[in-house]
Amino acid sequence: MTSAVSTLRAILNPRSVAVVGASSDPAKFGGRVMHFLLKHGYRGRIVPVHPAATEILGLPATANLCAAGDPVDVCILALPAGHLPAALEDCGRAGARGAVVITADFAETGADGATRQDELLQIARRHNMRLIGPNCLGYINPQLQLALTSSVALATEPMQRGAIGLASQSGSLMASLISHAQDLGTGFSVAATVGNQADVDLCDLVEYFIDDDGTRAICLYVEGLKDGARFLELAQRARVAGKPILAVKAGRSAAGRQITQSHTASLAGSYAVWEAACRDHAVCLLDDPEALIYCADFLIRFGAPAKSTVAVMSPSGGTVAVTGDRVVSAGLALAEPGETTRRELLKLLPPGRTINPLDVGGLPRASGLDSALTAYELLARDPAVGAVLIAVATTPLLEDKVRRWGAAALAGKTPTAILLTPGTLVDGARAALKDIGCPYTNRLDDTLRVLRAAVDYGEALRDPPPPALPSKVAAAARIHAATLPAGRLNEPETKAMLRACGISTTDDVLARSIEDAVAAAQLIAYPVVLKGVCRNLVHKSEAGAVKLDISDAGALRAAWHDIEQGLAAHLPGTTLDGCVVQPMIRGGTELIVGCRWDDQFGPVVIVGTGGVLVEILDDVQMAVAPISAGHASRLIARLRIAPVLAGARGRPAGDMVALAETIARVSELAAALGPRLAELDINPLLVLEAGRGVVALDGRATLAH
Amino acid sequence: MTSAVSTLRAILNPRSVAVVGASSDPAKFGGRVMHFLLKHGYRGRIVPVHPAATEILGLPATANLCAAGDPVDVCILALPAGHLPAALEDCGRAGARGAVVITADFAETGADGATRQDELLQIARRHNMRLIGPNCLGYINPQLQLALTSSVALATEPMQRGAIGLASQSGSLMASLISHAQDLGTGFSVAATVGNQADVDLCDLVEYFIDDDGTRAICLYVEGLKDGARFLELAQRARVAGKPILAVKAGRSAAGRQITQSHTASLAGSYAVWEAACRDHAVCLLDDPEALIYCADFLIRFGAPAKSTVAVMSPSGGTVAVTGDRVVSAGLALAEPGETTRRELLKLLPPGRTINPLDVGGLPRASGLDSALTAYELLARDPAVGAVLIAVATTPLLEDKVRRWGAAALAGKTPTAILLTPGTLVDGARAALKDIGCPYTNRLDDTLRVLRAAVDYGEALRDPPPPALPSKVAAAARIHAATLPAGRLNEPETKAMLRACGISTTDDVLARSIEDAVAAAQLIAYPVVLKGVCRNLVHKSEAGAVKLDISDAGALRAAWHDIEQGLAAHLPGTTLDGCVVQPMIRGGTELIVGCRWDDQFGPVVIVGTGGVLVEILDDVQMAVAPISAGHASRLIARLRIAPVLAGARGRPAGDMVALAETIARVSELAAALGPRLAELDINPLLVLEAGRGVVALDGRATLAH
Repeated sequence: MTSAVSTLRAILNPRSVAVVGASSDPAKFGGRVMHFLLKHGYRGRIVPVHPAATEILGLPATANLCAAGDPVDVCILALPAGHLPAALEDCGRAGARGAVVITADFAETGADGATRQDELLQIARRHNMRLIGPNCLGYINPQLQLALTSSVALATEPMQRGAIGLASQSGSLMASLISHAQDLGTGFSVAATVGNQADVDLCDLVEYFIDDDGTRAICLYVEGLKDGARFLELAQRARVAGKPILAVKAGRSAAGRQITQSHTASLAGSYAVWEAACRDHAVCLLDDPEALIYCADFLIRFGAPAKSTVAVMSPSGGTVAVTGDRVVSAGLALAEPGETTRRELLKLLPPGRTINPLDVGGLPRASGLDSALTAYELLARDPAVGAVLIAVATTPLLEDKVRRWGAAALAGKTPTAILLTPGTLVDGARAALKDIGCPYTNRLDDTLRVLRAAVDYGEALRDPPPPALPSKVAAAARIHAATLPAGRLNEPETKAMLRACGISTTDDVLARSIEDAVAAAQLIAYPVVLKGVCRNLVHKSEAGAVKLDISDAGALRAAWHDIEQGLAAHLPGTTLDGCVVQPMIRGGTELIVGCRWDDQFGPVVIVGTGGVLVEILDDVQMAVAPISAGHASRLIARLRIAPVLAGARGRPAGDMVALAETIARVSELAAALGPRLAELDINPLLVLEAGRGVVALDGRATLAH
Repeated sequence: MTSAVSTLRAILNPRSVAVVGASSDPAKFGGRVMHFLLKHGYRGRIVPVHPAATEILGLPATANLCAAGDPVDVCILALPAGHLPAALEDCGRAGARGAVVITADFAETGADGATRQDELLQIARRHNMRLIGPNCLGYINPQLQLALTSSVALATEPMQRGAIGLASQSGSLMASLISHAQDLGTGFSVAATVGNQADVDLCDLVEYFIDDDGTRAICLYVEGLKDGARFLELAQRARVAGKPILAVKAGRSAAGRQITQSHTASLAGSYAVWEAACRDHAVCLLDDPEALIYCADFLIRFGAPAKSTVAVMSPSGGTVAVTGDRVVSAGLALAEPGETTRRELLKLLPPGRTINPLDVGGLPRASGLDSALTAYELLARDPAVGAVLIAVATTPLLEDKVRRWGAAALAGKTPTAILLTPGTLVDGARAALKDIGCPYTNRLDDTLRVLRAAVDYGEALRDPPPPALPSKVAAAARIHAATLPAGRLNEPETKAMLRACGISTTDDVLARSIEDAVAAAQLIAYPVVLKGVCRNLVHKSEAGAVKLDISDAGALRAAWHDIEQGLAAHLPGTTLDGCVVQPMIRGGTELIVGCRWDDQFGPVVIVGTGGVLVEILDDVQMAVAPISAGHASRLIARLRIAPVLAGARGRPAGDMVALAETIARVSELAAALGPRLAELDINPLLVLEAGRGVVALDGRATLAH
């Protein structure tokens, strides 16, 4: 354990806490903190700090923390922003190991706030104190009955212990999740808010949870990551430790990204990169905060299914029909139980029934209870079934059936998601499940999220992407790039860099004059392509600087003049640096392959559908670079255009081997050059028939410095 | 009101009921019915029918309904299947106007059951009795405190009156919805199950609800419609009456379709056609049964928004970020409030906040309550805002804020969806909203469904598809088709039918010999296309019977031989009827345009992306035929390929006018020939540049008789 983690452990498991700005008034932040500390029965030492009061809620208060005896492990500060620096200094001087700052109006409100936040951070660093917040709501540690928070959720809710570790950038989301956990009969090892993450960030908490024996699943509400690479390293450690990470990330939309800025001063970064990184690192990405609890609880109690298939059963024909439809719509595969299972099930059922989804309604009354249980067990024990979904609707003997199903699920090895579709009408069944510790959901949306997360997590565990090998191109890329100036690379420069990395491009000739071009075309053989080269020209096609399928010298000359005139109209005063002449290649499938430097995760490699379909298909896959060719093959397989590449409708299959190798090389290039390669696009990369390779027809890049 | 509806009205609002198979044992169907009739306080006459008992639960029982005084309005029968025919005869003889048959094991279990079901139906018809069921759970009419059902839901739930009319093919779904309505503080005019729909079907109930003053929204759970055309007529009447219809339809997946068969003997039909029909007829199609209640309640209390835009606010920054993301992901447009609204809002808020989504957390304590209300009212009154979503998370003074928001929403004109994200923690706020009659949701999934349904319903009301005009092609189509035999039409026959309807095709020549073909090609001018014609040949391309881009007579002769050999290999023993020679046309965009006869809705016109993209894009739109060209334009606009047709990335725009006109003509052809035209495909229909029209390059059709 690093010393940073051990300090955080001490802060999250304190023997003593000081409340700076303590009050007995629950309408005030410092008052709520005091009330919750006492109400939930924290058994450590509590030191109220107040400039005047000698006693608060029966505890002796002090005006000077340094004079209050042994150093406290953690101070919580709920003071107006102006009083914070001095108070934080006091905490530091008194030897506190950590400080929790609830107060808002820091970096999230703009530059002035960011300066004030930095001031706090410097004070904390000077005193070797970890800082949680500012602009957070503190944390709870139910194992210690510690509620070190001002969240109003703690006014009514008891603190249920459990194995979920929660780190949230939002205080009120923590409150909502505490409430849902309580309702479902589950709870937390620690639930903490980190607000603006001035010092302690989500990754610190993930590291703590990985090392914490009491935590079995890690839930995150993320507005922005401070260090994407560290997050991915921790995700790898969590995978090895068998602790699933489940995350909700704000900022998928432009609107959401604006909010993360004004809420916790977080740069949300690219959601697409985040999504790709999570998928490759077995992080379950959810779209809904409350679903974190459902999914974490399910994974804690059942683990991931061994197979990615689902069997659906319900005592209601209508419910089973709708549920079957929705399971299929959610992209989950319905299991196909084996012949023995079928035979045994059909013995229990009225005629005409299907096996999956399975309608277990209308069973003979006398044997109904037993048959309902037997039906479940037959499905759950079938080796073709990865997980079972029981959609519970009203039926005679409901509570008994549900209790038996739940007990059998907990006793068995097949993850089983129980959905209770009616409202309070079936609260008895909910209580029965809580009673035996069996998770359940109340809405099919959540049931499907649970199954999706469990299936995806299982697949990620079984089948992690192959590791990237030592780079074949790193040295060449660095040597080549060392000679290049910062700024935009034109097409010949970009292609030269690609060739240095062993990526196939067209054999181009850069002609400085029409006559050079005519000679080059003669050599290349008609038909040829002519493209204008000019450093300031970004959108060649729009400037009319791309001429395809030129069949003879006359047409070539005309094309050169057209390009000159087009450039003059498009960028007046700019002169042409020349034109590239290249062979006209027909057929194949056009892709875009490239890379970007991402502020959170670093180098990212991208592959997508090119050409006229770009907007329609919106067909892009990406991964944090570098990746192996095997990993690149997975990105290709996930493209919507994949069937065409594979040879749909009688077309020849594309050269998937060369394509995967090229994507891997681009990813190695991206990793090798790091932030220097701001972006690179091969557009189009033409994928030829299997065995004929791929070829970069055009390309551009930007070097950062 | 038709007499059928007035009979149904009498049955659903009975002055007297008989329970055939009555019992005092609540474990039996007939016992539950008796208990629920008494428990919920039905004030009409109740006649228990039993072969031996003289009294059941304090009411005098009879063995012979005919001897029991005045005829009863409705009998409910819960007897073993074998006893039903005789009992139903008794009911008929006693003058009952309707019978509800709960017993299952009829058409849903196969052919024998279907025969037994038909026998019941004949008995009912003979006695002029309407039959509800079999395989149903009866109905409730809370206005009369009538629970004429065996559903266990009625054992615990009171029956809340309300303005939702529910017709369900599933009994336990009705139970679940009764429970959810109760939880939300809303209820039903009538909630009825129709099971196998042997006689009374969903449409009968829709018609009843349209005429019923107590019903303001109509909810349906559909497994199969008996008469799609009638449903669409009723949907039109409901639209005029201002009563939204909301529906969940099972059978979207193959698995779901199997279940509808074994559950209520319903043929689910094509979900895609159903979806298209609902969209064009202002029927809100939902994917989740419980959401019916949320959406119906919302539309009853608020109506549809005048604009299709949403403003989002929350006192939690995290919640507002996630909610903003999800609203955008759901395809809902965020409203852009005007300058005045912005200015006024910014006065209330800490610096740095965005306007929509709006984070109203951290308001100054003294003015917090007022500011939270003012913020809502500023948004709700802004003319750019169609609907407001308030995502309520924990915040100080939560209940007061929520009560004020709810009251303001009910008093105002802007539909407002209130989401309560925490669990039981905020049950106080839920009670406050129930108290004032303001709808709310507990999960964002449902909030988004509510807003989506309300926005879609508003758009459908404002902007119904233009009506189809009298057909331009009906007479020609009928005359042309009268000459054709049943079975598959080959390419020349199909194209002749298209031309008869004014649809442009290539100018083909059907050549019976190679020399004819050479002569034809000379006339048409090279390059040409040669295709084999043979009635038994369905998949021309797979048999190698399509040869493109033939440039001279030599190539043409070779192509003819290739086609002959390919056919011999593909369909041994079959001879070629000849080959069509057609001009080779380049460019344009390939679509598929066609029609199908649908068992539920009749003629359906289809347009979709053709060519190599078919599988990838899965890009199909359809409508119940006939449709106008204006309506066809909407189908085109909804295609994913629409941007390419409109001229994306510098390509010329396609001839959208000719395309829309062609789709309309195909729809008229489909409507004119009715079930005789089983299917027709123009594949591909080539869409040329604007002004150059469209042209059918190939086509096939099947006539039914």
